[in-house]
Amino acid sequence: MIKVSVIGVTGYAGIELLRLLRSHPHIEIKHLISHSQAGERLDNIYPQFYGSKEIIMEKYDLEMLKDSDLVFTALPHGIAQDVVAELFEAGIKVIDLSGDYRYSKAGIYEKWYNIEHKYPELLASAVYGLVEMNKKDIKGAGLVSNPGCYPTSAILGLLPVINTEFVNQDSIIIDAKSGISGAGRSLSLTTHFTEADESVKAYKIAEHRHTSEIESTLQEFTATDIKLSFTPHLIPMKRGILSTIYINIKQEINEEKLSNVYSEFYKDSEFVKVFPGDVYPDTKYVAGTNYCHLGLKIDNRLNRIIIISAIDNLGKGAAGQAIQNMNIMFDLPEVTGLEDTALFP
Amino acid sequence: MIKVSVIGVTGYAGIELLRLLRSHPHIEIKHLISHSQAGERLDNIYPQFYGSKEIIMEKYDLEMLKDSDLVFTALPHGIAQDVVAELFEAGIKVIDLSGDYRYSKAGIYEKWYNIEHKYPELLASAVYGLVEMNKKDIKGAGLVSNPGCYPTSAILGLLPVINTEFVNQDSIIIDAKSGISGAGRSLSLTTHFTEADESVKAYKIAEHRHTSEIESTLQEFTATDIKLSFTPHLIPMKRGILSTIYINIKQEINEEKLSNVYSEFYKDSEFVKVFPGDVYPDTKYVAGTNYCHLGLKIDNRLNRIIIISAIDNLGKGAAGQAIQNMNIMFDLPEVTGLEDTALFP
Amino acid sequence: MIKVSVIGVTGYAGIELLRLLRSHPHIEIKHLISHSQAGERLDNIYPQFYGSKEIIMEKYDLEMLKDSDLVFTALPHGIAQDVVAELFEAGIKVIDLSGDYRYSKAGIYEKWYNIEHKYPELLASAVYGLVEMNKKDIKGAGLVSNPGCYPTSAILGLLPVINTEFVNQDSIIIDAKSGISGAGRSLSLTTHFTEADESVKAYKIAEHRHTSEIESTLQEFTATDIKLSFTPHLIPMKRGILSTIYINIKQEINEEKLSNVYSEFYKDSEFVKVFPGDVYPDTKYVAGTNYCHLGLKIDNRLNRIIIISAIDNLGKGAAGQAIQNMNIMFDLPEVTGLEDTALFP
Amino acid sequence: MIKVSVIGVTGYAGIELLRLLRSHPHIEIKHLISHSQAGERLDNIYPQFYGSKEIIMEKYDLEMLKDSDLVFTALPHGIAQDVVAELFEAGIKVIDLSGDYRYSKAGIYEKWYNIEHKYPELLASAVYGLVEMNKKDIKGAGLVSNPGCYPTSAILGLLPVINTEFVNQDSIIIDAKSGISGAGRSLSLTTHFTEADESVKAYKIAEHRHTSEIESTLQEFTATDIKLSFTPHLIPMKRGILSTIYINIKQEINEEKLSNVYSEFYKDSEFVKVFPGDVYPDTKYVAGTNYCHLGLKIDNRLNRIIIISAIDNLGKGAAGQAIQNMNIMFDLPEVTGLEDTALFP
Repeated sequence: MIKVSVIGVTGYAGIELLRLLRSHPHIEIKHLISHSQAGERLDNIYPQFYGSKEIIMEKYDLEMLKDSDLVFTALPHGIAQDVVAELFEAGIKVIDLSGDYRYSKAGIYEKWYNIEHKYPELLASAVYGLVEMNKKDIKGAGLVSNPGCYPTSAILGLLPVINTEFVNQDSIIIDAKSGISGAGRSLSLTTHFTEADESVKAYKIAEHRHTSEIESTLQEFTATDIKLSFTPHLIPMKRGILSTIYINIKQEINEEKLSNVYSEFYKDSEFVKVFPGDVYPDTKYVAGTNYCHLGLKIDNRLNRIIIISAIDNLGKGAAGQAIQNMNIMFDLPEVTGLEDTALFP
Repeated sequence: MIKVSVIGVTGYAGIELLRLLRSHPHIEIKHLISHSQAGERLDNIYPQFYGSKEIIMEKYDLEMLKDSDLVFTALPHGIAQDVVAELFEAGIKVIDLSGDYRYSKAGIYEKWYNIEHKYPELLASAVYGLVEMNKKDIKGAGLVSNPGCYPTSAILGLLPVINTEFVNQDSIIIDAKSGISGAGRSLSLTTHFTEADESVKAYKIAEHRHTSEIESTLQEFTATDIKLSFTPHLIPMKRGILSTIYINIKQEINEEKLSNVYSEFYKDSEFVKVFPGDVYPDTKYVAGTNYCHLGLKIDNRLNRIIIISAIDNLGKGAAGQAIQNMNIMFDLPEVTGLEDTALFP
Repeated sequence: MIKVSVIGVTGYAGIELLRLLRSHPHIEIKHLISHSQAGERLDNIYPQFYGSKEIIMEKYDLEMLKDSDLVFTALPHGIAQDVVAELFEAGIKVIDLSGDYRYSKAGIYEKWYNIEHKYPELLASAVYGLVEMNKKDIKGAGLVSNPGCYPTSAILGLLPVINTEFVNQDSIIIDAKSGISGAGRSLSLTTHFTEADESVKAYKIAEHRHTSEIESTLQEFTATDIKLSFTPHLIPMKRGILSTIYINIKQEINEEKLSNVYSEFYKDSEFVKVFPGDVYPDTKYVAGTNYCHLGLKIDNRLNRIIIISAIDNLGKGAAGQAIQNMNIMFDLPEVTGLEDTALFP
Repeated sequence: MIKVSVIGVTGYAGIELLRLLRSHPHIEIKHLISHSQAGERLDNIYPQFYGSKEIIMEKYDLEMLKDSDLVFTALPHGIAQDVVAELFEAGIKVIDLSGDYRYSKAGIYEKWYNIEHKYPELLASAVYGLVEMNKKDIKGAGLVSNPGCYPTSAILGLLPVINTEFVNQDSIIIDAKSGISGAGRSLSLTTHFTEADESVKAYKIAEHRHTSEIESTLQEFTATDIKLSFTPHLIPMKRGILSTIYINIKQEINEEKLSNVYSEFYKDSEFVKVFPGDVYPDTKYVAGTNYCHLGLKIDNRLNRIIIISAIDNLGKGAAGQAIQNMNIMFDLPEVTGLEDTALFP
């Protein structure tokens, strides 16, 4: 059994981690850490756990956490920095769900997050936990930085073509639509039911931090300088991200060839499914799962490819992907504990 | 491994059964039967299965189904009658999710469903599959009739008190609110998104068939004649039923005593959880699960108890309960394959 | 032109008042008062007003408000008390949307609201603004206390039968379902989108303040002591209340007779519509309007009537009713500015 | 009073037309025509009209309609062709809400709609009813072809810049998100509540008919050949379209200048509002109105402008715009009957 603890369990990513860990066959949960709710019973905050074995949340304590093989940190960015560094230096494996360790260069982080990075030397040890790109490095990592939700959906849609000769790397536009759990559990008018219901809106246009995460990850993958447009939108549903990705092509390509490029790229991926040409993904089909569904359309009239990428922002976009990373770090089959079909309807 | 088949797999109850069966550790799925979609791939209808082992739906064929230890029938009432009878007579265990075999007397069925019952002699062999009431009989049954969604939520709320001396059995009012998946996958204006969204409405007031199912089940349990009001409502969400149950009390009772009555009654039940006095159930906390959450309130000013009962209409109200029945019929631990926490949020 | 001002314009009731006042043909708006947003442009808070004539919100100032014939106060209870008293004593007509002046006896208010009433002598001057009950008194009133949303829907459903010989006044149960705007614009986890979406829950069972408002209003109407059960629920939509009302009958009554009792009672009411027996109200049909739709069902099997009452909680349940009261106070046709059909779908 | 009739009143656009016409001060409604519901009372189909003056729907009859000054045709494309031609030739003014008369060249229509156009000679008489572009021609028109919902939102977002020297006309991408009323009242699994709720999906990518309507309208405006990407999405709400429009710039431009270009272009437009730079439109702010809200963002890092355009698909995208056209055709102030503020929340 792998002994794991979760720091920041009361947020949506934390609680989804706990849901998945509880049904994982090789896990023993040691500690659930919550700064604000230490000493409280978990089922007082989340009654879905009522009647299960009593769980009391605890304060963060490095010594105490040394009984864990792995700690998941689901803390706000900025706050995660110190905790992750401390755990890592104590030799405990860490999967960090914040944005703090997702960049190889502290400068980009500091520019887009407007926060100083206190541990730039640690960034070289942190592996970006997108399994479909970095599986080998994740295997031996002591610190895995779990990708952001929007970046996961966008990057998985782009990886198979970004390095091919037929696309124009300078023409990428990502128009993403997210359910409102992506904004977390903190209260705001934007996420107040009566204001978010029957509403769709763009936000942080050309300024969202995930723009830089997508760009820097693709830059590492392609070894070229990539800049792209990313526009996030909030839509009235709980979970799910659909990214509609536009990229120009330099030469004609037919659907069969494009589909083969994608299928070949993901032929060993357990969780990325490439749909046939006439079917497009729907967030509903990945709800509660670690899957990413991709749909492809070539618009030869305009020399442009349109890629549709659907994930659950709390699944493949957060907790599911963290479990997938854990499985790889601990030499378990990648799909362990992640085989559920979407909850439908 | 228990060999099972599902008839009527493309409806919402059928697909939820399949979701649960796929993650059940002791199951081998033999056949998925769909009258209208025979020969089709399942993932053409439900893309959440895309990329999993190919599944082709088949036509109903009694001979073919003889390789199954158990068949789930998820067919419309009226149509289920013949199939269930045929399977049962061929010695195959059946769990029927329709209303056709839920009554001990054909007359009540015929009156409320306005259909002739062609196999009244079979009703004595059918066990009403509410585990919390009929566990022993289910164990040895060849035919289990899985309860309706509204009845499950209402009856579980009433069982602990209905036979006590402090309630007035003639005063029961059940006001139920259901998500729209309860109306199935057949198209209608009532369930058209734009008409159902931002809408709440009552329907079939004092005439819904489940009234008779609740009454006749409680009559068997109490051995007295029970009549009650049941009003179903549709509310704009996918899944979940919340029943608000009113019953008058003949003598004062305090919260502690009432809570003990419920806790005692359900002390061996894996799936019914009685909430403490100041917390009320929310359908959100049981989404995707087989749990029933109960909340209790005594209004001593009016000599009335109010009971809140929350289930997932496709979980404990249909497919989850069917799996629970299967586990008992095949001597497995009752919770096998049903231990997931609610998908939250 | 009637000169009006609104105090507390930035809440949902305030903004709905403003929407209605702007399209009212006999209104001149003098001041929009907001304590927290004084000095701000209204369209900074509510962009639906962007591009219309600039509106700057102001601080409360009694002298300034003396240019108004009428002031609407849309303030939280407790806070409204002083402002209403001050305006009334200065001779300005007031329509108060809070709960502060809805009771003839300060004692009941103090018990259910747990606040001292500082102006008990004013209660005799305050007319309860349910037009269908108190039209004559409203005409000459200097202070109208606008009814609560739940009470409006419940009382309109009960008025026609509560004094008849065939009902049992002691048997009333009101099970109400409300959209989430009823909880206002203040932030809370209960009204956070991701927690309220795909959820239905009861709250304040047997303890909601509106219980006492319904009871005391019916007591004044019947001159008997009325006690009843009232259970509010939150459902995932913006606007609308559906009340399902149960009342026992002492003697059989047929649908025609019952329907006539209702139609006769409301024959001069512009805004209450009694549906024929086979059609039930839906909140969707009253969205954005001042209408109340009533549906009736007799359950002779159980000697019980079920009454369905639908309103828009911000329309007939708040701002619409306030405009209706204003029209009557200023001798305008009751429907002026309130003739819109529901926004459908 | 203008005497008007509506053909196809039972669809969503038809019923919204009726809602607006009923509160329009200069309108007398002569006939409401419904093929499938002729002879029925309107309030049997749409109970929001219950209790208003009885309205019986009628069969289409050219002679009968000659008492009307104007007929609105809200029929499916293909079916509208004949009726519109017949009315027009009989000298009755027509505003057609279908796609049948939106193109100056029959060939484009026939290609994208895959239907023969039987009246190509009439196309020269039909004025495309986008007031902000064709106001003068609408004034004298006998046949106005009301724009599609997506095209209205997209074109209004592009008109001010499409002819300027600083944009690249070849780089337009329109990513549109629509509420589900856009799909009409016909039943389908796509619009079944349980399938559409908690779901977002793209459809008809690079193939939607409105692509050709946007292109040909912009071509007429610019006198150059314009091709663009248009991707429609369905999101779980009733009403509203948000178009996110991407267009590359050839030279740097600052926010002030861009904002001035838009404000100047729409300075005489009653219904198009250009938001300041830091505020983005939300469909919620235009619900039930004829407004179009525009937001602007310059991404100088990528030399790209992002334009956000929000309308109500049944308001400015259908019925509201039709009333606006009528006002202009009959020399009424453009805003008559269209001055309502959005229903909020």
